[in-house]
Amino acid sequence: MKLAILGYGNLGRGVEAAIKQNDDMELVAVFTRRDPKTVSILTENAKVLHVDEAKNYKDEIDVLIICGGSATDLPVQTPQFAKYFNVIDSFDTHAKIPEHFANVDSAAKENGKIGIISVGWDPGMFSLNRLYANAILTDGCDYTFWGKGVSQGHSDAIRRIEGVIDARQYTVPVESAVESVRNGENPDLTTRQKHTRECFVVAEDGADKARIENEIKTMPNYFADYDTTVHFITMEEMKKNHSALPHGGLVIRSGKTGWNGENTNIIEYKLTLDSNPEFTACVLVAYARAAYKLNKAGESGCKTVFDIPPALLSSQSPEELRAHLL
Amino acid sequence: MKLAILGYGNLGRGVEAAIKQNDDMELVAVFTRRDPKTVSILTENAKVLHVDEAKNYKDEIDVLIICGGSATDLPVQTPQFAKYFNVIDSFDTHAKIPEHFANVDSAAKENGKIGIISVGWDPGMFSLNRLYANAILTDGCDYTFWGKGVSQGHSDAIRRIEGVIDARQYTVPVESAVESVRNGENPDLTTRQKHTRECFVVAEDGADKARIENEIKTMPNYFADYDTTVHFITMEEMKKNHSALPHGGLVIRSGKTGWNGENTNIIEYKLTLDSNPEFTACVLVAYARAAYKLNKAGESGCKTVFDIPPALLSSQSPEELRAHLL
Repeated sequence: MKLAILGYGNLGRGVEAAIKQNDDMELVAVFTRRDPKTVSILTENAKVLHVDEAKNYKDEIDVLIICGGSATDLPVQTPQFAKYFNVIDSFDTHAKIPEHFANVDSAAKENGKIGIISVGWDPGMFSLNRLYANAILTDGCDYTFWGKGVSQGHSDAIRRIEGVIDARQYTVPVESAVESVRNGENPDLTTRQKHTRECFVVAEDGADKARIENEIKTMPNYFADYDTTVHFITMEEMKKNHSALPHGGLVIRSGKTGWNGENTNIIEYKLTLDSNPEFTACVLVAYARAAYKLNKAGESGCKTVFDIPPALLSSQSPEELRAHLL
Repeated sequence: MKLAILGYGNLGRGVEAAIKQNDDMELVAVFTRRDPKTVSILTENAKVLHVDEAKNYKDEIDVLIICGGSATDLPVQTPQFAKYFNVIDSFDTHAKIPEHFANVDSAAKENGKIGIISVGWDPGMFSLNRLYANAILTDGCDYTFWGKGVSQGHSDAIRRIEGVIDARQYTVPVESAVESVRNGENPDLTTRQKHTRECFVVAEDGADKARIENEIKTMPNYFADYDTTVHFITMEEMKKNHSALPHGGLVIRSGKTGWNGENTNIIEYKLTLDSNPEFTACVLVAYARAAYKLNKAGESGCKTVFDIPPALLSSQSPEELRAHLL
């Protein structure tokens, strides 16, 4: 299976590493908007090419994994490249998924290609677990907790405050809330009761730290509804202790069974990730395999993780899967 | 969707309760090997009929949920009834799944029906999670822990000992082993290091308790390889404290990502079930919906959870699922 990557940031590098771990896959090319001469990749024998050249490789690539951002890149790139390639993306603006789906679906169908969108862990594996758990436990409550992990959006929001040089924000689930859900208590939880926010900030020399802390804690949407802690640290500490991108979280459904709903059953799916982008990349690569198989079987159009038979993600045959994993 | 149940034990009663929770489903009949007059069910308007009459209802039932045992019932019943009905079973003899699959596949294909086998939580939801986690984290280790929960097989084994009136055996995962796996330590665990076994036994008056305890603890396959605790209790205590059938467990995969495998990521799926048979029943009923939809779409043959697109399990439309659960 011949794969290509569009966009070589954290996610693109993760995809490159994930492809290396799969014997049935080969990275053919990385397409970039930058000057290809300035981009150096790790895979021997793969090309680095400008994105404008991508179309010329349409017959040499089985699946293109698009690693752009959801705000402005993917809404344009995924429908555009679905005309030439089977494509996968990690589009994560939940509210705009129906619109993105429609755009990718028409482009892919017209050209006999498969597009699988919103692949990753949320949306992605968390969505799948919400779906399975809801289909099984019809009478129940859903809970999603994120963290402990770095939120890039919240880190960026802090960096925009005057006097801030660098910042890292961790989203942390409230352990007592998680325990209450695990105990089947079906609590009603406010935003504040579910997560806390912990911020590490490098301030300019002589900056007013009290003002910065106050601006963070009162920032609408991002922090005002949460219990937020702010730690001022040196750039040295930032580089030493906060340069990784861990993340994760839990999806829990608590549901009643029995003729009178007398029994409680809890389904929990939990991710603990040293590297958020590398894990997302691994999910993208598994779904790239499914896209390839589906297209070989004559299918086209837009799909999500909800539509993909799990066996298609694996390099093993159906017989091997039944014998060893069932 | 019109459903019927074959076999009205713990699992069959669980299926009846699960059908009641799904508005798009109706229980039409319960088929039994007993005298139907002796079987009283909870659903108004559903019939209780002898199993020999089942064939006569082949045009009135969309899916037959077969609730027999894996040792002797299902290997015969599932292929036999796949000639007349779309069928679901919870066949759980892992080693014989390929053979059972082949038998159900030929019967179902010849008659244009769908058969979904080995549906439940292990095999079933645990298998699915092993598959997803293996496809995503290619370089990793799998761990499955069961419990805390009642093992019927081990309870039965104790009941066969002379002087034992009743017994209940709980399989208990070793918490330190689970924590080591969660910490990404990839431990090599012996049978003894993964689970302990806790037994509650009602002995006959005057029975030699020391002999019973020794017979339990040294029983090959069932107990000899485990740290086993035996508690002698009264029949009153047994009925009061040990009449439920809780179970559950965890599937964990720990895998490396990154160009040099420098990051560790943990995927954990955990079930905590007040009622093992009722939860299994809920999974069967969700897959019955998928069998119905697949057959309506013209498909036939044997399937497992690995083959079923997740969206088919839900009563919601693809559009609703994308808008609300993705």
